[in-house]
Amino acid sequence: MKILALDTSNQPLTVAVLVDGKIQASETLTTHKKHAEFLLPVIEDLVQKSGLKPVDIDRVVAAVGPGSYTGIRMATTFAKSFASTLDKELVAVSSLLALALNVRDEEVLINPIFDGRNQNMFTGLYQWQNGQLKTVVDDQHTNMDDWLKQLANVELPIVIVGETDNFVGPYKDALGSQIQVAQGLQNIPNAALLAEYGQQLEPIKNVDGLEPRYLRLTKAEADWQAAHPNERGGNYVEKV
Amino acid sequence: MKILALDTSNQPLTVAVLVDGKIQASETLTTHKKHAEFLLPVIEDLVQKSGLKPVDIDRVVAAVGPGSYTGIRMATTFAKSFASTLDKELVAVSSLLALALNVRDEEVLINPIFDGRNQNMFTGLYQWQNGQLKTVVDDQHTNMDDWLKQLANVELPIVIVGETDNFVGPYKDALGSQIQVAQGLQNIPNAALLAEYGQQLEPIKNVDGLEPRYLRLTKAEADWQAAHPNERGGNYVEKV
Repeated sequence: MKILALDTSNQPLTVAVLVDGKIQASETLTTHKKHAEFLLPVIEDLVQKSGLKPVDIDRVVAAVGPGSYTGIRMATTFAKSFASTLDKELVAVSSLLALALNVRDEEVLINPIFDGRNQNMFTGLYQWQNGQLKTVVDDQHTNMDDWLKQLANVELPIVIVGETDNFVGPYKDALGSQIQVAQGLQNIPNAALLAEYGQQLEPIKNVDGLEPRYLRLTKAEADWQAAHPNERGGNYVEKV
Repeated sequence: MKILALDTSNQPLTVAVLVDGKIQASETLTTHKKHAEFLLPVIEDLVQKSGLKPVDIDRVVAAVGPGSYTGIRMATTFAKSFASTLDKELVAVSSLLALALNVRDEEVLINPIFDGRNQNMFTGLYQWQNGQLKTVVDDQHTNMDDWLKQLANVELPIVIVGETDNFVGPYKDALGSQIQVAQGLQNIPNAALLAEYGQQLEPIKNVDGLEPRYLRLTKAEADWQAAHPNERGGNYVEKV
């Protein structure tokens, strides 16, 4: 099976091509926020260096959120367009799970973090079990205090990974030596790992129905809901 | 500090740019043996995507062998030329150590392997101690039987990593459950890890004197030595 994997959820952009279980080519950039400029050229370059054409790819594995609004829309849109146009399999993966793949230790809980500013975060809790990365606490948009309450009864060591800089202090204050902080490269998603992990997952059935996993309202949506309290749950895009 | 790291010792080609401890760009290809075609374009591409020019790089970190004769000559020649021409620091790293960086576990011994055919191997034994990867048994070109004798008194678990396919059987026969086999991506060198690790190493003083670490004679050298038994230890290149 020939797999193209990509993650543009936050500042890093990472793309990989895997054929029959073996990584052929991978590239990761952390310097640019304008993924629009680099995503397609990097994909084309790596597919070509792998001796393939886009039509040869059997499956695309994409991290579809949470993350930056633009970043996860770009990955999702590319993956949908590619899979739909060329009739390929599409596997959609949590961007937090994609980051958690960097910590390969069955004896800890893995707590990936994207900084949502002002002590808000996108986060979740994962654990390796028999080669599968299982969800222990669902991905969510929350704040540090509320999240710490959800970790109160956890007994295993917790490895925090990703955009941890603004959170290490509160974690250590609350949980002390139970907290380990991932180092260096572990904090950057790696599409090569995403491609490997995506081999075993089920492709989604309704490719055209795939949406990014925002996990929070955009400001426009929040404003609309505030102005339309009786229509909560509606879709402001359809209504406005 | 701005670091360019590269490893072309065997089939994988891996290049990374790191600035002030943070990886900016990295690319790894496993599909091509003709590194001559890809090494310079990949370096130029990643340096540019990092927002740098070659002259901005402060230090080049290169895996200089053992490995394929052509591959380690290419990395060494590039690194020497670059450092010498632009007056940059040069850090030379064992290609086996570079591979061992993929296994980040202080409680095991790490045994990187390049397949030398006919049950011959380039290998060595490493262990993490306080963030440094220390040599336990020196890099060498040897055969499976002789290598196993050197491991006879080892008590810690041993993780074999790299080109292990032709050796797993003999390892397991000799050492059973003491042997763990690295999986997937761990078996491919990653210049991003090499760049991170190379930050803390001492640059070499005599850049122009750097040679690839072949660790075995080429056939031409072996033939020359066989024909000149009284001049063993001489350099056939100087003599012929």
